[in-house]
Amino acid sequence: MTAEKVVEVSRGALVESLHRGHVAVVNAKNELLYSVGNPHEVIYARSSMKPLQAIPIVETGAADHYGFDNADLSLACASHNGEDQHTTRVQAILDRTGLSVADLQCGTHNPKLEAAYEALIKSGEPLTAIYNNCSGKHSGMLATARHMKESTADYYKLDHPVQQRILEVISDLTEVPVDDIAIGVDGCGVPVHAVPLENLALSFAKMADPSGLPEKRRDAVRKITTAMAAEPEMVGGTERFCTDFMHAMNGRMFAKAGAEGVYCIGDSETGIGIALKIEDGNARATSAVALEVLSQLGLLTDEQREQLHDYHYPPLENARKEKIGELSPAFTLKEYTVASS
Amino acid sequence: MTAEKVVEVSRGALVESLHRGHVAVVNAKNELLYSVGNPHEVIYARSSMKPLQAIPIVETGAADHYGFDNADLSLACASHNGEDQHTTRVQAILDRTGLSVADLQCGTHNPKLEAAYEALIKSGEPLTAIYNNCSGKHSGMLATARHMKESTADYYKLDHPVQQRILEVISDLTEVPVDDIAIGVDGCGVPVHAVPLENLALSFAKMADPSGLPEKRRDAVRKITTAMAAEPEMVGGTERFCTDFMHAMNGRMFAKAGAEGVYCIGDSETGIGIALKIEDGNARATSAVALEVLSQLGLLTDEQREQLHDYHYPPLENARKEKIGELSPAFTLKEYTVASS
Repeated sequence: MTAEKVVEVSRGALVESLHRGHVAVVNAKNELLYSVGNPHEVIYARSSMKPLQAIPIVETGAADHYGFDNADLSLACASHNGEDQHTTRVQAILDRTGLSVADLQCGTHNPKLEAAYEALIKSGEPLTAIYNNCSGKHSGMLATARHMKESTADYYKLDHPVQQRILEVISDLTEVPVDDIAIGVDGCGVPVHAVPLENLALSFAKMADPSGLPEKRRDAVRKITTAMAAEPEMVGGTERFCTDFMHAMNGRMFAKAGAEGVYCIGDSETGIGIALKIEDGNARATSAVALEVLSQLGLLTDEQREQLHDYHYPPLENARKEKIGELSPAFTLKEYTVASS
Repeated sequence: MTAEKVVEVSRGALVESLHRGHVAVVNAKNELLYSVGNPHEVIYARSSMKPLQAIPIVETGAADHYGFDNADLSLACASHNGEDQHTTRVQAILDRTGLSVADLQCGTHNPKLEAAYEALIKSGEPLTAIYNNCSGKHSGMLATARHMKESTADYYKLDHPVQQRILEVISDLTEVPVDDIAIGVDGCGVPVHAVPLENLALSFAKMADPSGLPEKRRDAVRKITTAMAAEPEMVGGTERFCTDFMHAMNGRMFAKAGAEGVYCIGDSETGIGIALKIEDGNARATSAVALEVLSQLGLLTDEQREQLHDYHYPPLENARKEKIGELSPAFTLKEYTVASS
C-alpha cells in the first residue's frame, strides 16, 4: 500500500502541488477502524510522542514533588512558540528544580513565532535553549532526573534512565516491543521513536480511553491529557493549530503535531486515536487532513467546522495579501475490514 | 505517468520522508532526451520564468536607455535574499528611471536571508517592497513601462503591455500558443504561467542555444544569460543554490529556482535545457535533483561535484548542530525514445 493523495494545493484553475500521506484510525482495543494509504507504515513519531514522553514526570512523582500544575504539564508536552508565556514558565520549572537554562541540552533555534523572534532580536538578549520549542519537554525530563537523583548532564542519551522509562511507556502504549522500536535522533537531541502508524494511533486511543491501563498509568495518562486540553496555549501558542484545535474541542480531544508531517489526535468520547503522516514531511498539509478525518467520522459540529475553516482549507496568500489559492483535503477514509487487511 | 520518487529524506536507519517529482531534459530542437515521472505535466513555472520575463527589458531598449549593466540584468532575473547588495541596486535602478519604492507593486515579505532580516529589525527601518525577493524583476518591469511611456501604476496586470510582451516571449520560447498558457497570480502579484514541463525545459534550451532565434531575440537572450552567469550573487545571494551553482559552473550554465519546487537549468555547451518539479512543492529537494540530473548526464566535474556536495546530498542538522540525517537523490533518468512517448 503506497501513500495516497490527501491534499491538493491549488492556484488559479490548476492544482499546483499535492501531498500524499497515510492515516490510521484505531480504538483502544487495537482495532484498526479506518485508513488512508498504508496504516502499517513505520514512521518516526517525532514530537507527537511528547504526551507519552511526559507520563514518567507524573509516574515518578516528580510532577507532585515540584508542583507541576496543568499548564506546566501541558508545556512538557509542547512544541511551543517561544513566547513569553512559554519561556517564563520553563524558567519557573527550572528554578523550582534547582536547575538552570544551561542544563537544557536541546540546543537553540529561533522562536517559532515571528513576533517572539522579532521581540528577542530587538531586546538584544542572547538566543538560549529556553526558546527551543522542546524546552518544556526538556525541563520535564530534567525534573524527573533530579527527583530520581539521576545525572542531569546526560538525560538526553538513550541509556539514561529518563529515556529508558520513556521507552517502556512508548512500548506499552503502542504495543510494540522495545527491540522493535527503531531509534533516531530528534531535532532536540533526544531519542526519537519509529513505530507503525497504526500503533502510534493506538497509543493515542489508549490515552483517550485509558480504562484498560493499570491504575498508576491510567491516572498519569489522565493528568497529561486533561492538562493539554485545559491549557492548549502551552502546547503551541498564538496561531498554532494544536492550540486553536483543542480550544475549539472544549476539552474533548487532545492533539499533538510532530515534525515531518505527523499529527495525532485522541478523542475521549469515542476513545479513538488518529495518527497521520504526510509522506513528504510538509507540516502545511497536516491540519487539513486531521480535520477532514474528523469531518468524515462525523466528529465535528458545524460551529467547530466554521471556527477551524482556515485550518481545514488553508488559504494561500501572496505578498500583496491577495488570496491566490488554497490547500484542500482530497481523500476518502477507507473503512477497515478483515478482508482488506 | 505519475510522479516518481526523486529524493529520500533519511534519519538514522530509516527513510523518514520522500519527495516525488518530474524531470524533463530537452534540446533547442524540441527533442525530449530524458525524463523522470511525467515530462508532459502542466506546471506553474513560477520564478523560474524570470529570465524569460527579463527579455523585454533588453528588447524594448529600456536596458540600454537606463544603463542596465550585467548585475542589474541579473537582479531583474532574481529571487534575491534582500541583502544590502540587492536592495541598494534596486534603489539605484528606481532612481535612474525616476521612480521610487512606492511604485513597486510586489507587496512585502521579510528578507529571505535571516541575517538581512535581523539587520532590518535591529535598524528599526520599515519593511518595504524593496526587500521582496521579486523587487529586481518589478523594477525591470517598471523600467520597461517607463521607457515605453506606458502606465507605471498597473504594470502587474495581465492586460498591461508589459505583461503582454512577456506572454509573447514565453509563448515563443516554450512553443506553447498564448491561448494554451494557463495564468494564475504569482506570489508578487504578477501573472504566473503554466506550461508542460518539457516546454519549460525547451525555453531554457533555447536560451542556452539561441542560434535558431531571430537576431534581436537572440541578442537579448545572450545578454540575459551572460548577465546571470557573470553576476550570480544578484540572482540569489549568500548561501543560495542558484548563486553557488552558477559560481561553480564558471559561466557555462545559468539556472533559476521557482517556488513550489521548480528548478530550471540551461547549459550553453550542450544546448540542453532541464526543468524539474517536486510534486509536493518543497524547495528543499530541488538542488539534490538538479545536481543528480547533471551528474547522470556526465556534466559535472569531480571538482564541481565536491564543491556542491551539500546541495547534492543536503545534510539535516538538529538544534544541537549534530548531523542526524540527509536528503539524497533516488532516481534514474529514463532515456526518451519515440516508442516510450
